[in-house]
Amino acid sequence: MATLDHVLGAIADPTRRSILARLADGPARISDIAAPFPMSLTGFCKHVRILEHAGLVKRTRHGRENTLVLSARPLKQVAEWVLDYEQFWNLRLDRLEKFFAAKQEKSQ
Amino acid sequence: MATLDHVLGAIADPTRRSILARLADGPARISDIAAPFPMSLTGFCKHVRILEHAGLVKRTRHGRENTLVLSARPLKQVAEWVLDYEQFWNLRLDRLEKFFAAKQEKSQ
Repeated sequence: MATLDHVLGAIADPTRRSILARLADGPARISDIAAPFPMSLTGFCKHVRILEHAGLVKRTRHGRENTLVLSARPLKQVAEWVLDYEQFWNLRLDRLEKFFAAKQEKSQ
Repeated sequence: MATLDHVLGAIADPTRRSILARLADGPARISDIAAPFPMSLTGFCKHVRILEHAGLVKRTRHGRENTLVLSARPLKQVAEWVLDYEQFWNLRLDRLEKFFAAKQEKSQ
């Protein structure tokens, strides 16, 4: 399993998130996925390799062409990490300070 | 609001995730947060600046020292992005290919 560092680093790039979004519609050939992106195929393939390294896509060979399929399981650890903070993100900064003050008082 | 790129890039580093975990217990002085990390204060402050730039921590001045407080709101967009993939991450690769095949058949 790829580390959370690798997975987060992989999805921190908009091109790589677009590739995942495309693959959420189904497996596709690399050249077809690459077509809309304003970059060389070599540049595009670097992004694909980062996604592979993070375990987020799998490459399978169909005839002459490589096909990519989404492998979303590593995203589960991202969800688990981020949902630990759910209690905090609806609080404004001023309320957050009060929240922590109350929490500290409670624990004393 | 910081972009999703900045937020994901910021949390892709284990030191920066540890800082957020520490701040989930309440605001703290930078020097106190830095103490357990095996790096220079200068190196540590670079991580803090990346978190600030991503909107994930806020710095407030208390006397001579800067205090950091968690600002978790940008994590909400991470959760929203990642939860879009929830339907996929419990499927194994072989079942995923079947899932897509069935989906494609349905849409034809």
